[in-house]
Amino acid sequence: MTGARTAMQRAFAEDDRHRLDEDQVVVLGELAARVRELIEAAVLTDIELDEVEAVTAEVAALTQRLRAARRAEPPVADIDGHGMVRQLASPVIGKLNPIAPPIDIEALPDGTARTSYTLSTVYEGPPGYVHGGVSAMVLDHLLGCAAMLNGTPGMTASLSLSYRRPTPHGVPLVAEAKVVRVEGRKTYVDGRILDPDGRTTVEASAMFIMPRR
Amino acid sequence: MTGARTAMQRAFAEDDRHRLDEDQVVVLGELAARVRELIEAAVLTDIELDEVEAVTAEVAALTQRLRAARRAEPPVADIDGHGMVRQLASPVIGKLNPIAPPIDIEALPDGTARTSYTLSTVYEGPPGYVHGGVSAMVLDHLLGCAAMLNGTPGMTASLSLSYRRPTPHGVPLVAEAKVVRVEGRKTYVDGRILDPDGRTTVEASAMFIMPRR
Repeated sequence: MTGARTAMQRAFAEDDRHRLDEDQVVVLGELAARVRELIEAAVLTDIELDEVEAVTAEVAALTQRLRAARRAEPPVADIDGHGMVRQLASPVIGKLNPIAPPIDIEALPDGTARTSYTLSTVYEGPPGYVHGGVSAMVLDHLLGCAAMLNGTPGMTASLSLSYRRPTPHGVPLVAEAKVVRVEGRKTYVDGRILDPDGRTTVEASAMFIMPRR
Repeated sequence: MTGARTAMQRAFAEDDRHRLDEDQVVVLGELAARVRELIEAAVLTDIELDEVEAVTAEVAALTQRLRAARRAEPPVADIDGHGMVRQLASPVIGKLNPIAPPIDIEALPDGTARTSYTLSTVYEGPPGYVHGGVSAMVLDHLLGCAAMLNGTPGMTASLSLSYRRPTPHGVPLVAEAKVVRVEGRKTYVDGRILDPDGRTTVEASAMFIMPRR
């Protein structure tokens, strides 16, 4: 993302939570990636119950090892060494958070925030489709990023979603968002999710309010 | 939840996916609960990097053991032995899904769908607060349950959220939803999240469309 300094980034910067260095980010990112695979394996496993119980006991033992030293809060990372932070453990984009897909957001030259992503069955609502609440979560985050890219970041004040058709899981989706106007401290953003055939599955509009400086 | 037979339940009932028995639900629920603890431990761990790498390798080995037999899709369970299903692996309420908090929804006598829940730092957006998209996900699910409780279930057509104040994590929250009116195949539901002081943090309104029988 660009260098826009958001309220959230300021909040983290003023926070005393620990900054990770790049080595830590890589190693903890690998851990999260493997736990992400474990999550899906746990949801889909069809092994014998006594073997499930044996694996369960080993999972608990690994948790104890990870807890041998524990932070009070999720870590962040400096983006540029000047107090700008990256949310490493976001439930949407956080590579260090196993529950995050995680989606990877790119900034297009015209200010559009865009992501290509595929969700596993772990995010299923109706059979074969992504849970509508998960799509809401992705869009909330993406629209907030578009406001930030515009240089007018803020906290979400409102979010409206229209579900046009079911969003399939297990196939590549695209989501995009762009600022449509700014009025004083209010930034209005529209966005949507597209299925692999380019059809809009969910439309979203949000308003973000910039904090007073 | 009540015996209202939703479109989603019908879809699952018509689906050929595997039904678990209660023993399987208990044992796989324990696995998911331990993986849920592992997720939080992974986000917060501050152990040495070589120990992180050792744990990472063991997580990968456990994933392989779980994958020795794998379902194509998440399992469901009969609610009553007559084809009604429970979504065991929902990302919101699924006790078998490690990414679900999971929230536990109760039906009040007046038709309100209500849940008391506490979210860990794994669901963090702004420092100290729940990600707005996670609150959207919880409300989407809860409002859908209220429509079902009313006997007028449907797919989410629209969802509007107003963020009144930040929602804290690590403390007990309450969310509730109730049908406000039904117009033909459309069911309108309002809901909200309350912080421990009883203040509304997020308000939600949704409209669900009943499928044609």
